[in-house]
Amino acid sequence: MRVTVSRKAHFNAAHRLYNNEWSDARNAEVFGKCANPNYHGHNYELIISVKGKIHPDTGFVMDMKVLKALIREEIEEQFDHKNLNEEVPEFKTLNPTAENISVVIWEKLRNKISEDLELTVTLYETPRNFVTYSGES
Amino acid sequence: MRVTVSRKAHFNAAHRLYNNEWSDARNAEVFGKCANPNYHGHNYELIISVKGKIHPDTGFVMDMKVLKALIREEIEEQFDHKNLNEEVPEFKTLNPTAENISVVIWEKLRNKISEDLELTVTLYETPRNFVTYSGES
Amino acid sequence: MRVTVSRKAHFNAAHRLYNNEWSDARNAEVFGKCANPNYHGHNYELIISVKGKIHPDTGFVMDMKVLKALIREEIEEQFDHKNLNEEVPEFKTLNPTAENISVVIWEKLRNKISEDLELTVTLYETPRNFVTYSGES
Amino acid sequence: MRVTVSRKAHFNAAHRLYNNEWSDARNAEVFGKCANPNYHGHNYELIISVKGKIHPDTGFVMDMKVLKALIREEIEEQFDHKNLNEEVPEFKTLNPTAENISVVIWEKLRNKISEDLELTVTLYETPRNFVTYSGES
Amino acid sequence: MRVTVSRKAHFNAAHRLYNNEWSDARNAEVFGKCANPNYHGHNYELIISVKGKIHPDTGFVMDMKVLKALIREEIEEQFDHKNLNEEVPEFKTLNPTAENISVVIWEKLRNKISEDLELTVTLYETPRNFVTYSGES
Amino acid sequence: MRVTVSRKAHFNAAHRLYNNEWSDARNAEVFGKCANPNYHGHNYELIISVKGKIHPDTGFVMDMKVLKALIREEIEEQFDHKNLNEEVPEFKTLNPTAENISVVIWEKLRNKISEDLELTVTLYETPRNFVTYSGES
Repeated sequence: MRVTVSRKAHFNAAHRLYNNEWSDARNAEVFGKCANPNYHGHNYELIISVKGKIHPDTGFVMDMKVLKALIREEIEEQFDHKNLNEEVPEFKTLNPTAENISVVIWEKLRNKISEDLELTVTLYETPRNFVTYSGES
Repeated sequence: MRVTVSRKAHFNAAHRLYNNEWSDARNAEVFGKCANPNYHGHNYELIISVKGKIHPDTGFVMDMKVLKALIREEIEEQFDHKNLNEEVPEFKTLNPTAENISVVIWEKLRNKISEDLELTVTLYETPRNFVTYSGES
Repeated sequence: MRVTVSRKAHFNAAHRLYNNEWSDARNAEVFGKCANPNYHGHNYELIISVKGKIHPDTGFVMDMKVLKALIREEIEEQFDHKNLNEEVPEFKTLNPTAENISVVIWEKLRNKISEDLELTVTLYETPRNFVTYSGES
Repeated sequence: MRVTVSRKAHFNAAHRLYNNEWSDARNAEVFGKCANPNYHGHNYELIISVKGKIHPDTGFVMDMKVLKALIREEIEEQFDHKNLNEEVPEFKTLNPTAENISVVIWEKLRNKISEDLELTVTLYETPRNFVTYSGES
Repeated sequence: MRVTVSRKAHFNAAHRLYNNEWSDARNAEVFGKCANPNYHGHNYELIISVKGKIHPDTGFVMDMKVLKALIREEIEEQFDHKNLNEEVPEFKTLNPTAENISVVIWEKLRNKISEDLELTVTLYETPRNFVTYSGES
Repeated sequence: MRVTVSRKAHFNAAHRLYNNEWSDARNAEVFGKCANPNYHGHNYELIISVKGKIHPDTGFVMDMKVLKALIREEIEEQFDHKNLNEEVPEFKTLNPTAENISVVIWEKLRNKISEDLELTVTLYETPRNFVTYSGES
């Protein structure tokens, strides 16, 4: 039986939307107030979902304690109370939109989680905007 | 990379469940208090989800500002503070169940959104009842 | 020790804002789309709070089962799936604003609950608008 | 048109995680504080989702009143205010992890719901941990 | 300027409602399914609120990091994944109703927090039932 | 009859905690990661509550449309997608803790709202931390 288990986590970060191959004027035109050079920020709420078979001995798809610790080390400690553009290496050249952040989180977790488990990242940028990525190309 | 972006919106409306090919007695029997001829109402909470490739220049699947404006024009301005049965043309002959409302919303948005984007509508009729429609036949 | 115990409940209803001593034009001017003569509606979420001493035998301020049943009989069965203006006697002449609804609910419950308990009604008209009434004049 | 309709429900229960083919020491090692022999408990929040065609007469995929009553009888009355390990027969020998509980709920409902409807169970063990099962093997 | 700062926390526990000066029959009659001798359980969600003057140097009423750590040590580590009746000394003779639990939490925190700060405990036993205690007699 | 009416709003902003009369080392010691010179950010959720008599003609304590517009002009347009330390004049010399932000918001709204109405500001810095200010000294 294949079940999906999900764990919520969160981090608070500053960012701005910015394509550094564009002029400031073009950035302001496309991204509006999200391009503010002084940054703004969000409480990102994160849901990590892992799908696979229930292990008959434990009754677990994946031990939630392990998943919780993995999210803490790989994501929360890297992103929380940070400026994403300035302090998270992946966003030095990649625009930290919710879409791109979800892909970066997925890639950071993908090679830490057993390959026979499917991985989905859901990221709430605000309570009203959220994105989901499952590694689909 | 294909990502789903979702945006929440809401509208408050009156409705009643009513099949106008049936007698009032039959409507009352099937729909119970939801058939009340004086109407009742809901705060409908809406999630519009759009799935597609991240555009490499913007980092967006679809600009949330555009999606937000589209939901406002096509859905909120048509449905908010309305009586769905009496004032929304689609429900003159179609019973405004949550299921049918989700299909109508999907159809109204489908031809306003680029064809290479998949569209899903989630509609909460109450915090305890909700429906999802993705155009599947 | 005086503790406040609170219980959530809910009802779905249609209403319109309307002062029946005013012209329709004046109602439309003051209440905007809320005056729509065809009604709109809400999922009202209700919190009933009761404050008093903990009874030493039960450890209860008031038995939640009793409070739940009282809310069902006095409020939910009177208001749920109703048109407040047309079907709830109190609003025949009283404009069913959230403020006035909270006062009516408070008065309906006040004489069903022991006088040594303080009563507060919190009513969410939408997830974004709510009112609170404690019998203060 | 195939739509998914979902209904929320809930039950409060005690449980412990325990594989009765293992020693107590092994259970404590694997399950940590969740193996506490005196039990702990949760407010389980449940979402039952049913996907199928909208019936043209009713506008329903499935009557929510029927689904609500079915969840009450088959799940809430069996699980609410119970000790899952001690009082729910399915967990006499099956470890009541969220994963296993979701499978048991799915199986209990599957043969009560029309076969042309797809069934998904989402179970929140806490507001931060949840699982989803759709009958996939 | 006197401001209230609040911090959310949570613990999962088993309990039963039981007055040990009463017969089992009397307990069953008064507390119904909550008296189940095999226990049931809850995800208790806790809000600790502290009111006082803003310190001019820090801009804090109380450092949230300190409050968070205090709640962890004094409450979460004592109550989480425990059987309240069996394992928390205060409830050996005191019925663990939500009311009584809120008083016990208040008393445990009261003498750890500066006397010039007012303390309020809000405890959600379920998302639908909650209590508040501020030390009022 | 005196009723409290409340309206939710929100803004997303960057900030850092910083007392500019202290050394950087002292700021880091007291505020930890919240003092990060590159900023972090939050989705601030705001509840503005106004208490007063129900006007007998309108049934309103205060017209929610007016309150909503006032919050938009005075707070959301000043704070949303801003860096509070750098771009909001009040925080040039005042540390933008949640406590201080709530006081600033209260003062900005106080002289725009009729004096016979009591005003309370509740500000969620995260879903787990919030503050309340009612003008009490």
